[in-house]
Amino acid sequence: MERSLEIIFGLIEEKKYALVREELLENNEADIAEIIEEVNDELGTEKSVILFRMLPKDISAMVFAYLSSDCQVDIVGGITVKEVQNIMEEMSFDDMIDVLEELPANVVDRILMRTDKETRKLINQFLNYPESSAGSLMTIDYIGLKKEMNVGDALQYIKIHGMDQETVYTCYVMDAERHLEGIVSLRTLVVSDSDETIKDLMHEDFISVNVMDDQEEIAQLFKKYDFLALPVVDKENRLVGIITFDDIMDVIEEETTEDFERMAGVLDDSDKEYLDLSVIQHIKNRVPWLCLLTVSLMITGAIIARFEALMSQVIALVAYMPLLMGTGGNTGTQSATLVIRGMSLGEIELRDVGKVIWKELRISMVLGAVLALINFAKIVLIDRQEPLIALTVSISILIVVIFAKLIGGLLPMAAKKLKIDPALMATPMISSITDMVSVIIYLLLATLIMGITL
Amino acid sequence: MERSLEIIFGLIEEKKYALVREELLENNEADIAEIIEEVNDELGTEKSVILFRMLPKDISAMVFAYLSSDCQVDIVGGITVKEVQNIMEEMSFDDMIDVLEELPANVVDRILMRTDKETRKLINQFLNYPESSAGSLMTIDYIGLKKEMNVGDALQYIKIHGMDQETVYTCYVMDAERHLEGIVSLRTLVVSDSDETIKDLMHEDFISVNVMDDQEEIAQLFKKYDFLALPVVDKENRLVGIITFDDIMDVIEEETTEDFERMAGVLDDSDKEYLDLSVIQHIKNRVPWLCLLTVSLMITGAIIARFEALMSQVIALVAYMPLLMGTGGNTGTQSATLVIRGMSLGEIELRDVGKVIWKELRISMVLGAVLALINFAKIVLIDRQEPLIALTVSISILIVVIFAKLIGGLLPMAAKKLKIDPALMATPMISSITDMVSVIIYLLLATLIMGITL
Repeated sequence: MERSLEIIFGLIEEKKYALVREELLENNEADIAEIIEEVNDELGTEKSVILFRMLPKDISAMVFAYLSSDCQVDIVGGITVKEVQNIMEEMSFDDMIDVLEELPANVVDRILMRTDKETRKLINQFLNYPESSAGSLMTIDYIGLKKEMNVGDALQYIKIHGMDQETVYTCYVMDAERHLEGIVSLRTLVVSDSDETIKDLMHEDFISVNVMDDQEEIAQLFKKYDFLALPVVDKENRLVGIITFDDIMDVIEEETTEDFERMAGVLDDSDKEYLDLSVIQHIKNRVPWLCLLTVSLMITGAIIARFEALMSQVIALVAYMPLLMGTGGNTGTQSATLVIRGMSLGEIELRDVGKVIWKELRISMVLGAVLALINFAKIVLIDRQEPLIALTVSISILIVVIFAKLIGGLLPMAAKKLKIDPALMATPMISSITDMVSVIIYLLLATLIMGITL
Repeated sequence: MERSLEIIFGLIEEKKYALVREELLENNEADIAEIIEEVNDELGTEKSVILFRMLPKDISAMVFAYLSSDCQVDIVGGITVKEVQNIMEEMSFDDMIDVLEELPANVVDRILMRTDKETRKLINQFLNYPESSAGSLMTIDYIGLKKEMNVGDALQYIKIHGMDQETVYTCYVMDAERHLEGIVSLRTLVVSDSDETIKDLMHEDFISVNVMDDQEEIAQLFKKYDFLALPVVDKENRLVGIITFDDIMDVIEEETTEDFERMAGVLDDSDKEYLDLSVIQHIKNRVPWLCLLTVSLMITGAIIARFEALMSQVIALVAYMPLLMGTGGNTGTQSATLVIRGMSLGEIELRDVGKVIWKELRISMVLGAVLALINFAKIVLIDRQEPLIALTVSISILIVVIFAKLIGGLLPMAAKKLKIDPALMATPMISSITDMVSVIIYLLLATLIMGITL
């Protein structure tokens, strides 16, 4: 692909478009889409539209579906509404909905005007499902069978209704009112005798999801059961669509990226790639948490200011403050990250809170003791400070590590209990809290141990 | 499932095992496995083995495959080698290999002794593939066709070779020496006329991977092309197995968990769940990074100690140190996390390094200026400190934010360039570096601006 890209850039420069087309069609749809995106980014939309128009009708829809939404909007701006509509007609229903969700409203209106009334109604219905619901993920391209059919009829039906690649391997058995009664896999149909009836072959203990269910729960189901597809039903248990594994892989990726971002104090609800996001948007995503964290750091500063008298008497104490705060942040982050990830994989449930605390308590006591000992030795032997200072620092470290690990384990679970995203309780949050607590512990202990009156 | 679990716990206590069996079989295989695991954890292996032995032969293998490896080892310890072997024979080949990899060597030997020579050779070959290679992920349960067959023959062949659920939807066309010549989907076979030949229907521009390829690259391919399965070939392009999407979903999950852990300074190579890992193992996973970070925090402390004279003259400076270090850590973490995630999704390539720097530079200048202004105002108006202190703090913040964002963007990319895992360059690493740099900048600026000679 990389090589093909270079060749095409060269040919565009020489305006040898017949050769560009030839080279372009050497690639598969996903790679063609990547080439068009590169051209769009580097040479402008005018050129990418020329390339896109070169594609034969049967593959242009697939290429279009692979493009990023930014590039889709660019391309749509450069071609006629008629052309857009042709692409839409070739696309699978869920891909089409994804595209329509991103396009400017006036373009959507113009496309909808040209479709028949029934399709328009269906599209509008899909566009209205909440963003992360089963409804917004599903497609209507599935094979529906009747339980009275025999295998021969069913295979004949499938053969006639030439269908979408992603939807054929599980067939859905419905009654006259579209109530879902069972599922049967194409595998079963192919290996069964042609006079067996669907009724005898279908599974009736299938799992289905409701159209308003959240995509995160659905992703958990896919991971647990290794489904290829899952039926989506409405309140009356009527089949309204199916969700396929490839869309779920995208969901899992999005949710994971969101976790990473939130754990780093970035609030991004755009699903856009790092490089596609404008500087302004990056700033907007990062500034809220930073301001909040600044306030917490100001409070930590104010606490320290209270102890100025202590520090001016024993200035050596100051040099160990970063050690205390850093150790609290690092150890707390470890625990918080493991617990957050464990919860998002469904490995840790809220009822495990006792086990988590007990585990972190034992871990933190050992780690705290190890770090306390290392630091005690270093302060006495290398820094040649008074043993009282070394004692203050090491006892503080022990307490801070235990506190940080416990709060790191507990806070994400408390957040989940309160229906707040646990990922928000990661690094920045934990280290803010441990910063404050560790300076308090350290400076109080110092006053106590060194017998200084403030 | 939760309700079923409660009922079963109750029935076990009352020793009503006939009813336990009845209740157990109300669930599907994945849920039965979960119940047996709970019983194993809470009531001991003796009870879980009783439950496992209740299962009909045809579902026990599937349940076994769903169990965690810890629980598998427990169950195997409680049943006879003959029983283990029966389960193995029912399992799909790749699941069997997964189990064998976890079992104690003496058990594996006893199982292998009872298999025929050819299977034993094959198993040994599979057990020898490197852990994260295509070879260790693949299964040999696939449908192989010849290009001379027609659709009718092919469907008949599939019908006779009753096959594994996960492997049927893509069929592989090979010549007499097992060289892979093309692929054809079951969908295509079903919708085509029975006298068409495979040769005319198969795709010859398929994508395959080599048996030694790394699982991370393979996962990228699955994500890009939405494959159901991917063929694995040896150096001579002979088909040796296939990898299916469900195994890849597990790989993606593992790799992501590894990223999370490394970004938090935890080095865990066990793939075990948080709750299953012993306290000792948790400590082993967490202590190396903590010790390294402690050394870096000691250095930061030593730097501060050098400036004791400055601080004892202007003790107010101490109160703003956490602000500087915390802001550096927080802003750097944001950038590092976004870049690391972008690279692991393939959104950011090494050649984008210029774009990343330019983006982070602009973002950091704005964010740095905002934070500098907020802090200047607060220090002068609320803390009522001298403007010179406020100036020192705000200029330091501006410089620290720019530095932290640039290093946060650059360091993960440098790591990738040097073939080190970028995830290791996240929070703990970045905040250690920014801690050091920010105290140096701050204290140097203070000496300069406030005109203090040390």
